[in-house]
Amino acid sequence: MEKNFTITSLGEALIISPLGLSKIKGDNIYNFIPDDERVLHDLSLKGFNKSKEENSNPDCFEKAGPRENIFFAPKNVRAAIVTCGGLCPGINNVIRSIVMALHYFYGVEDIIGIPYGYEGLNPAKKRGFIQLTPDKVKDIHEFGGTILGSSRGAQNVEVMVDTLIENNINILFTIGGDGTLKGTDAIGMEIAKRSLEISVVGIPKTIDNDIDIIDKSFGFETSFDVATPILRDAHNEAMGAYNGIAIVKLMGRDSGFIAASAALSKPVVNFVLVPEMDFSLTGENGLLRLLKKRLDQKHHAVIVVAEGAGQSLIKKEKDIIKDASGNIKHNDIGVFLKDEISKYFTQNNQEVTIKYIDPSYIIRSAAANASDSVFCSRLAYHAVHGAMAGKTRFVVGMVNGKFVYLPIPEVVNNRKKIDLESEFWFAVIQSTGQSFTMK
Amino acid sequence: MEKNFTITSLGEALIISPLGLSKIKGDNIYNFIPDDERVLHDLSLKGFNKSKEENSNPDCFEKAGPRENIFFAPKNVRAAIVTCGGLCPGINNVIRSIVMALHYFYGVEDIIGIPYGYEGLNPAKKRGFIQLTPDKVKDIHEFGGTILGSSRGAQNVEVMVDTLIENNINILFTIGGDGTLKGTDAIGMEIAKRSLEISVVGIPKTIDNDIDIIDKSFGFETSFDVATPILRDAHNEAMGAYNGIAIVKLMGRDSGFIAASAALSKPVVNFVLVPEMDFSLTGENGLLRLLKKRLDQKHHAVIVVAEGAGQSLIKKEKDIIKDASGNIKHNDIGVFLKDEISKYFTQNNQEVTIKYIDPSYIIRSAAANASDSVFCSRLAYHAVHGAMAGKTRFVVGMVNGKFVYLPIPEVVNNRKKIDLESEFWFAVIQSTGQSFTMK
Amino acid sequence: MEKNFTITSLGEALIISPLGLSKIKGDNIYNFIPDDERVLHDLSLKGFNKSKEENSNPDCFEKAGPRENIFFAPKNVRAAIVTCGGLCPGINNVIRSIVMALHYFYGVEDIIGIPYGYEGLNPAKKRGFIQLTPDKVKDIHEFGGTILGSSRGAQNVEVMVDTLIENNINILFTIGGDGTLKGTDAIGMEIAKRSLEISVVGIPKTIDNDIDIIDKSFGFETSFDVATPILRDAHNEAMGAYNGIAIVKLMGRDSGFIAASAALSKPVVNFVLVPEMDFSLTGENGLLRLLKKRLDQKHHAVIVVAEGAGQSLIKKEKDIIKDASGNIKHNDIGVFLKDEISKYFTQNNQEVTIKYIDPSYIIRSAAANASDSVFCSRLAYHAVHGAMAGKTRFVVGMVNGKFVYLPIPEVVNNRKKIDLESEFWFAVIQSTGQSFTMK
Amino acid sequence: MEKNFTITSLGEALIISPLGLSKIKGDNIYNFIPDDERVLHDLSLKGFNKSKEENSNPDCFEKAGPRENIFFAPKNVRAAIVTCGGLCPGINNVIRSIVMALHYFYGVEDIIGIPYGYEGLNPAKKRGFIQLTPDKVKDIHEFGGTILGSSRGAQNVEVMVDTLIENNINILFTIGGDGTLKGTDAIGMEIAKRSLEISVVGIPKTIDNDIDIIDKSFGFETSFDVATPILRDAHNEAMGAYNGIAIVKLMGRDSGFIAASAALSKPVVNFVLVPEMDFSLTGENGLLRLLKKRLDQKHHAVIVVAEGAGQSLIKKEKDIIKDASGNIKHNDIGVFLKDEISKYFTQNNQEVTIKYIDPSYIIRSAAANASDSVFCSRLAYHAVHGAMAGKTRFVVGMVNGKFVYLPIPEVVNNRKKIDLESEFWFAVIQSTGQSFTMK
Repeated sequence: MEKNFTITSLGEALIISPLGLSKIKGDNIYNFIPDDERVLHDLSLKGFNKSKEENSNPDCFEKAGPRENIFFAPKNVRAAIVTCGGLCPGINNVIRSIVMALHYFYGVEDIIGIPYGYEGLNPAKKRGFIQLTPDKVKDIHEFGGTILGSSRGAQNVEVMVDTLIENNINILFTIGGDGTLKGTDAIGMEIAKRSLEISVVGIPKTIDNDIDIIDKSFGFETSFDVATPILRDAHNEAMGAYNGIAIVKLMGRDSGFIAASAALSKPVVNFVLVPEMDFSLTGENGLLRLLKKRLDQKHHAVIVVAEGAGQSLIKKEKDIIKDASGNIKHNDIGVFLKDEISKYFTQNNQEVTIKYIDPSYIIRSAAANASDSVFCSRLAYHAVHGAMAGKTRFVVGMVNGKFVYLPIPEVVNNRKKIDLESEFWFAVIQSTGQSFTMK
Repeated sequence: MEKNFTITSLGEALIISPLGLSKIKGDNIYNFIPDDERVLHDLSLKGFNKSKEENSNPDCFEKAGPRENIFFAPKNVRAAIVTCGGLCPGINNVIRSIVMALHYFYGVEDIIGIPYGYEGLNPAKKRGFIQLTPDKVKDIHEFGGTILGSSRGAQNVEVMVDTLIENNINILFTIGGDGTLKGTDAIGMEIAKRSLEISVVGIPKTIDNDIDIIDKSFGFETSFDVATPILRDAHNEAMGAYNGIAIVKLMGRDSGFIAASAALSKPVVNFVLVPEMDFSLTGENGLLRLLKKRLDQKHHAVIVVAEGAGQSLIKKEKDIIKDASGNIKHNDIGVFLKDEISKYFTQNNQEVTIKYIDPSYIIRSAAANASDSVFCSRLAYHAVHGAMAGKTRFVVGMVNGKFVYLPIPEVVNNRKKIDLESEFWFAVIQSTGQSFTMK
Repeated sequence: MEKNFTITSLGEALIISPLGLSKIKGDNIYNFIPDDERVLHDLSLKGFNKSKEENSNPDCFEKAGPRENIFFAPKNVRAAIVTCGGLCPGINNVIRSIVMALHYFYGVEDIIGIPYGYEGLNPAKKRGFIQLTPDKVKDIHEFGGTILGSSRGAQNVEVMVDTLIENNINILFTIGGDGTLKGTDAIGMEIAKRSLEISVVGIPKTIDNDIDIIDKSFGFETSFDVATPILRDAHNEAMGAYNGIAIVKLMGRDSGFIAASAALSKPVVNFVLVPEMDFSLTGENGLLRLLKKRLDQKHHAVIVVAEGAGQSLIKKEKDIIKDASGNIKHNDIGVFLKDEISKYFTQNNQEVTIKYIDPSYIIRSAAANASDSVFCSRLAYHAVHGAMAGKTRFVVGMVNGKFVYLPIPEVVNNRKKIDLESEFWFAVIQSTGQSFTMK
Repeated sequence: MEKNFTITSLGEALIISPLGLSKIKGDNIYNFIPDDERVLHDLSLKGFNKSKEENSNPDCFEKAGPRENIFFAPKNVRAAIVTCGGLCPGINNVIRSIVMALHYFYGVEDIIGIPYGYEGLNPAKKRGFIQLTPDKVKDIHEFGGTILGSSRGAQNVEVMVDTLIENNINILFTIGGDGTLKGTDAIGMEIAKRSLEISVVGIPKTIDNDIDIIDKSFGFETSFDVATPILRDAHNEAMGAYNGIAIVKLMGRDSGFIAASAALSKPVVNFVLVPEMDFSLTGENGLLRLLKKRLDQKHHAVIVVAEGAGQSLIKKEKDIIKDASGNIKHNDIGVFLKDEISKYFTQNNQEVTIKYIDPSYIIRSAAANASDSVFCSRLAYHAVHGAMAGKTRFVVGMVNGKFVYLPIPEVVNNRKKIDLESEFWFAVIQSTGQSFTMK
């Protein structure tokens, strides 16, 4: 049986959209998207044949886009935007495009920014609001970070809904990761419980690219674009000393997409370590011996490690710590590797020089590159179209190259991970020359 | 009825691949790809239902990847690489990854570069060959251009095949556009006519992203990544004068992907003109009046125009000129617009300042960005796998996110164009604020 | 006899500076600069000995910096900033730092921007004013161009002074080139004629680095920093074709500093042509034969040409044209060279491919690099200190590494040029391998 | 009495230079530089007057440049280059330009690279040599690092001289910092003791810009050029959280030039801490209270700290550690500050978010920017001219804008430091808004 991917609506959309689009194909004018248009989930031939044979309907998602009828009268809308969690390239692009779309496409004139994440919806924090206008946001996409500020962690859902009511906010856009989206869904359920006409929309943000189902999250391409030249720097440092080793730690708590992509794009990397893989330090085919073999041949090596890799290797006695967002705070695998490698070569009486590079904040705070800028605008436009149509408790994302609306719970249950048997990971293996197993 | 997308083979692949991959799922090791694995072409639900109802097989492509058995014994291989046509970011990445894949994955030791395009296969030109080794190519991806040099235009097919034979070349990789690929196919047919065991493989190169069927061509993302900041420069110039107008001409002979993508990624653009659209200068809703309206409101404007846009507007008496590759040489729409705009405002007694920017060579000669670097490596690896398996007269490309092998004739008959009714073009329309029609 | 380098003052400075600096050396606090502190002009030993022998006073300039007493009471100041002429990296940095210095150091609260150059001081143009505050300017240094807009050409001096009076402006900062500074001086003289207490201060702006006496003008280092990678692009293009020639035209009407510096910083250039040098196309040692020799050896060549080079070669019948600023508009040497080179090789039946790159606006509109950002802030601070002290009709500049105040007439009479017998030009000659004479 | 700045020579230069330069002024051809040409040291008017009054000769340096007669017959020269100490932008540019100058200007054909610093001159290390040719080095300036590798620390001087003799090396170029140059001088003295005809030349390398007397060291401008955008990143991170604090640690063991210059070029910095200044954490005007004041007003702050700043604050019990080069290894002031600030606000029950950024290796391994590329080439050319003329135990540097030769001992005794009473430091104070004292 298929999952229920239907998007919740606040009610019937009765207002004619001011967008004035077409309803016919062939006139070179974009068409309104009907609510029942769908995008296939599983595109493999296997999925294709299976559903054909079983005569069943395949999993599909609701296609994103402007609806012919909208729910909210633009002049009555007070929209709010909140950004949560760590920085990620493109947040300001999303904010900007939401404001522009609300203002210029739909004529919404009252848009506010909630400062410092969900904290800003807790009146006890006294953060105030920021009025957002086209003039205010017109250049913000040139900068990384978020002009609204952010915070980690949850706030009381009832209090946040009270704040929305007291401030006449009827559309809330949240930009954040797994925890943020769960919060958005909880706010949406509380709104439903109180039978309010407030739409909540999530735009998934995760620098690790680990949101389930969707093709990619905004900011991811910029992240490895910014990380890539740093790998050349690392190579330069490694080459700069006899038996020079450079270790670069990149983001990736549960999924190593940034580390793997950066390594593949700058082919100076000899070892990529990601959370998805199991590897050992010692042993015949363990990292340390492979590294020694590499140094004996070439006298320099670059290791890229995702922050969530090799956690099982780090001493068990250390407690599991969570950050304010509830994410497990990993012990620093980069520092751990540096220490272990240093110890190993000292024991082997082999002189090595180790340089450790942790560019995390330089990547997180970067401005979106061209490709992400395009992606952020399109995401934001679709978020606005969905919200104006009265949809709620959904996220906007790209699936199989098409923008869709997804019910929030569908994307927050699992993390997307690198498939170690995929062509992508094989390309990484080919490029680095490392073997499939490191044990 | 479906098209025949079967790839031609030189013969049965009888040699066991040295790659030593897996044949079972679940062991975390990449699997050899069987020849009959396919990737669906049409992913829309409509396509899905249609084939279900008609009980027919949908269009599919052969999945790219390493085969369990290969045709060529690596020690007998002399592979050659040739690059043709204009520069495009990523050519050196493709060359590098072909060399690395042949050398390190398959153990091929004799790889040569054919200098200066197909001319290099014409002995009368006396261009010589370049021996390619891992050491020779290891850093070339850091630079734009092609280390092999290039040329435009065709050479005698029989002569080129003679050259391959005389030099014992049994795999030829060609990197080039439409004309180059047609040449590759012609070489392949001549080889078949002579019953030779020489594989010819194309890696489609087009900075305009206009190769049919495939998702994108390498270098395209870099191109608009490099073009994007130039649009900010143009905006700075436009803002720098009262009624300042900046016109940026970008590549795009038949398809306006670069112009549209760049404009969408840097939201300072007011008008995007692409070959796919029909627009007029004069008239109520023509470009000139819209431009005047914009200036009267804001006193500055940025126009991005693809080189192939508005050709019908340029005076008919000018002859159609073709370049050495057989492409129609367009009259310069940028200069034409500059002149027409200048004339119009002079006639209206309105002072304007026009700055014209043509960054073509700066974009073409750029080094690949991170995303394209990843893409180029994967393309090259797949080209090598296909060639070693004895496939011939095919190109490697990405379709629906998967790498596939396509018969050359399938991709050279039509140009991919922007669908003016697509969500992508609507996003451009939304971002710029221009209307669907400009007449 | 020495020149009179004394700066004109509006009157005695009687107000105690709010800066609260030190007057004693050794307390680790910057000292107020007395009006009689001087910086030597000629630093050569010859100059040294000459003045020693002649017992004369050497040429000196007034040292820039905060004065213990100031002329204007900050609360009475209404300062204005105007930017004239073509774009140059760093203008926004200068604007920003003037505003910050007036506001934070001296407590001036009324600062306006004059839009679109001197035109903005002509009420007939109805350009209005822009109020400048720290919040308004805080991020503008991140962008190239000028937030105030600019224009070329002169306006009626009396009208402009009338505007200053009518709007109670008592300090005018002008950012512009030769013509602008002459205008500033004229305004200052008109003010003096009318016995007004209005200070006029110039910050010399010339992307060509051709202002006399001063070490360098702001934006110059950024200019060749931005130009430099384009020379690599040109090299890639030249390498991309058999007998490929890339011609890059860079700014430099009378002085070839950008062309020479860029060529020296990116050693792929074979010929640098600057206005200071005399060269011929034909002849035994003319450019064309040297180019042919180069191609015959290496099959690719890069030529960098300053826009003002080789003007005498361009056909005499063409009239001398001046732009709105009164600068002679040069015939396009780049296009001329392209045509002549093409003609020459056609006549010699030698196939060549020529790529012509004119990145002018991309350079002019760039944001200041780090070094220029530092320079712009320091220039602006000194301009403010001088103006607040009641000095007028002066420019601020760096001479021998020290910031000084110079009477405007001293810097506008001559253009600084490359000394063809200097170590700098010799380094260019060495790096390119070209000879001293090309005739 | 003046210092003796005379450069030691190996003997009389009797060979006519192959450079074929001019000896007359006015022919537009660079002149040979006579040995007795000098550049003034102290350019202040005070220095000027003092020497005039005392009728004494002022301190002068020998002007660098090609000599009419040279000591070494090019065909007999075997030159070697060695790079020591940490990475710094521009090393490869210097290597490249030395090779090009030796080869193309003087016709020297035998040039070797000594791998991995002085270790490479110790045969026990078995590092081998690298033959350097124009083809080998032609593109190396595009990359940071050093193609020769480096090492820290001293080697036995007699052993190194033995190596020079055994390998017939008669010119040794060393690129390194204080310790390296002391080693170069020691090698030169040992050579003199043995009456050998081997020239040793130092090119001072210090990313901290702390070499005495000279205007600036190569790589310094690139360093703060690369550091500058990271300060924007830090600002983005600080803005991203309520009471966000970003701490950026930059290089600068004894001199804070990079930290101060970067802060001045990116005006988002609130506190710059350099080794030259004395500051306290606690106290009325200590850093912690000033930081609290800043946060209470603006809720975000950026601190830039040079690695050698505030060492006296770090707990005394920690031992002084030296690295292999003999430099004192500082306790990490960045981590220390992070901890102290965190402790302070915890004690004050004030929630803050601290982000700590240490971009050291990203800066050190960068490729030289345009300005440094020009500087490196000129330095290298002058080093070659001096060496070919038989000068020894000297460094090449820029003093008052002119290239000079300096006896090694003159530059290694003291470190250049920021003058806290200079206009430069005042500009930093003005830009950041911090006060002169922080106690």
